[in-house]
Amino acid sequence: MAQANIKVEPKGGDARAYALELGQRARSSAHKLACASTHIKNLALNSIADMILQHRHYLSEKNAQDLEAGKDRGLASALLDRLELTDSRIDAMAEGLRQIASLPDPIGSITDLNFRPNGIQVGRMRVPLGVVGIVYESRPNVTADAAGLCLKSGNAVILRGGSEAIHSNLAIADCIKQGLEKSQLPESVIQIVNTPDREVVGALLTMPEYIDVIVPRGGKTLIERVSQESLIPVIKHLDGVCHVYIDGEADKQKAIAIAYNAKTQRYGTCNTMETLLVAESIAPSILPELCQMYHDAGVELRGCGQTQDLCKHVIPAREEDWTTEYLAPILSVRVVEGLEAAIDHIEQYGSHHTDAIVTENLTSSQRFLREVDSSSVMVNCSTRFADGFEYGLGAEIGISTDKLHVRGPVGLEGLTTQKYIVMGEGQIRT
Amino acid sequence: MAQANIKVEPKGGDARAYALELGQRARSSAHKLACASTHIKNLALNSIADMILQHRHYLSEKNAQDLEAGKDRGLASALLDRLELTDSRIDAMAEGLRQIASLPDPIGSITDLNFRPNGIQVGRMRVPLGVVGIVYESRPNVTADAAGLCLKSGNAVILRGGSEAIHSNLAIADCIKQGLEKSQLPESVIQIVNTPDREVVGALLTMPEYIDVIVPRGGKTLIERVSQESLIPVIKHLDGVCHVYIDGEADKQKAIAIAYNAKTQRYGTCNTMETLLVAESIAPSILPELCQMYHDAGVELRGCGQTQDLCKHVIPAREEDWTTEYLAPILSVRVVEGLEAAIDHIEQYGSHHTDAIVTENLTSSQRFLREVDSSSVMVNCSTRFADGFEYGLGAEIGISTDKLHVRGPVGLEGLTTQKYIVMGEGQIRT
Repeated sequence: MAQANIKVEPKGGDARAYALELGQRARSSAHKLACASTHIKNLALNSIADMILQHRHYLSEKNAQDLEAGKDRGLASALLDRLELTDSRIDAMAEGLRQIASLPDPIGSITDLNFRPNGIQVGRMRVPLGVVGIVYESRPNVTADAAGLCLKSGNAVILRGGSEAIHSNLAIADCIKQGLEKSQLPESVIQIVNTPDREVVGALLTMPEYIDVIVPRGGKTLIERVSQESLIPVIKHLDGVCHVYIDGEADKQKAIAIAYNAKTQRYGTCNTMETLLVAESIAPSILPELCQMYHDAGVELRGCGQTQDLCKHVIPAREEDWTTEYLAPILSVRVVEGLEAAIDHIEQYGSHHTDAIVTENLTSSQRFLREVDSSSVMVNCSTRFADGFEYGLGAEIGISTDKLHVRGPVGLEGLTTQKYIVMGEGQIRT
Repeated sequence: MAQANIKVEPKGGDARAYALELGQRARSSAHKLACASTHIKNLALNSIADMILQHRHYLSEKNAQDLEAGKDRGLASALLDRLELTDSRIDAMAEGLRQIASLPDPIGSITDLNFRPNGIQVGRMRVPLGVVGIVYESRPNVTADAAGLCLKSGNAVILRGGSEAIHSNLAIADCIKQGLEKSQLPESVIQIVNTPDREVVGALLTMPEYIDVIVPRGGKTLIERVSQESLIPVIKHLDGVCHVYIDGEADKQKAIAIAYNAKTQRYGTCNTMETLLVAESIAPSILPELCQMYHDAGVELRGCGQTQDLCKHVIPAREEDWTTEYLAPILSVRVVEGLEAAIDHIEQYGSHHTDAIVTENLTSSQRFLREVDSSSVMVNCSTRFADGFEYGLGAEIGISTDKLHVRGPVGLEGLTTQKYIVMGEGQIRT
């Protein structure tokens, strides 16, 4: 496969001109994509999937270049692992695009269309945001994923992946280009930044006239840097300091299963529990057993005084433990008086990401759902369920910890907005 | 009535400390308001309305101080008019609050609650944003209006009105305080900045930890300044360069009535038509009569060559006319080839606020609704309908020309967000 238009060398002083060109091309093709039929968009998605499978050797070859360069630069083995495009990951990219094609098209959907007393009909139509900018790190499969979600939601997209994955990303870009050709959509609806020059990112973040929203995907440092520099609204995902509160009226078996799962099922995810709160009335009958289980699983326990009194293997928690997202086999544990104290703790120390209560009491569950101000609030299940696939969004571009526009897992709908439509029969205002 | 805690003198170097105090008080009371029942919120709204009527003489007295100071400072008569709290405006403030009380409470409403295959139920609950900051100009009735909308939507609010209205605003604040007392809501859920010191605004705009969203209400200069300075998301309302396009298949009588109404019903509003587009096939049978009507109403006409050929009283339009929001009895007129050219013109020159088509052709109306990317898109009615009351929102805090979060007229729902709620029976992730 012939690789076209690839400029791996930094563009230096031309960064702004190049970013401007990307922005203008995206804006000028956004209208065409916004008005494209569902059939055309799905044809493009399936064609890109075909091209990815057809060119799997080419993708592996280019990925090998990135892996080699990464080894030479001494990248950590975890990063090298994330960078690798194995055969099954190539399959998964194609499968992900086909899944996006099979999702309902949110665009053009009309809701709440009602007659007003004067006879005009007022409703809302779902429409794309316009142009989306995505800034992400290492994993090259994000390129296909994010491109697919933007395409289906009718948004032109500019993708800027990590410099360590540039050969892989540009090879995926070639597949995307060929897929778009089959659907007769302009190739500029999906553009991939073809240089590792970081100045291009800086320039893109300051072009609100060409880009409507920025979605950073990656570590906290990346997200904070993008948020600070951007003059464009950012859909961002910051800390996940998630809690499980075991209420005095919890079912013991459910409580132990949920609290164990929420911590140990995976340590490095944002919806992993970082602090366990237990009502003092039930703590003696639950905590010793549960703490032993954590200990056996290799989880370090940092607890309050009461927790230390009740359990073995617990070291004292310091104040900063309550606000720490460990992303590791470490758990802070606190015994609280009851529901009110648990809600207060979550309000004071939490990050408003995902918090769960375990209780059989209806009123307590209702209060927790209503009063805990987090993007996901749960009753009697593991915090690990907080993600777009589990919620039935079909796919996820990220999880928003913002309050405005979209909160929690972001699927296709989060990449759209609604405009008012009004239909009359000649009405004028008097 | 005793006026308490009023500091009309600038606070100088204490501006930041004062803003911080406002922010902290708002944040600390926001949780209580967010969880308040509909009954309590409505009680507060009706009590504030009672207090406003009960203290109408006090309000008039304080307003007279502002009017006198305004005259001394040589305020324009239009501004003095907007500043005045007449008896009927005082009645209208109270009536507005009662209307807000009668609106359905958006908070706590649960939608899309569905079972997932594993048995968890996932849905969304509407919740307040938290703390709203409102920065506005001259008209003191905005104080009651905006306070009412924030209260009903469960948001604590910090209101910063124009310095020219400070005595009026603080008198309204006294009524609000007394009304809140009756409902036992903390008085800090509605705070009014008690100094004209502009540094306080600057400080408030840089406190994202205490304020969740800023809504500027006023002229373009105010909105642009607030947007530039703010580190907090802003719901903003910029230009309204609105179009009416008379299609080749328009009904002549409807077309003339709508185009005349959209321009002349009020000149200074953002939803007033600023550019009329007419299909060339129908222009000769409509434009001469319509232009004569505009001329008789005192509207200055600036037209393209074809318009000038067809009509009297038309001066040549310059390029900048197509992008100008006149807010005055001036109209730019252009004859276009047809629907596609009209959409292109609106895309190129419009401000994406409100645009209408007049046509009897179904397919053309559908294309216009789908393809015109504006916050309100209309068929066969006047652009003047673009407002929250006409759309049935019951009340309006402004019109958003942003795409993210909320677009078009902003009612109670625009001051809320949705969190995910998840209910299980002990489910864990495997």
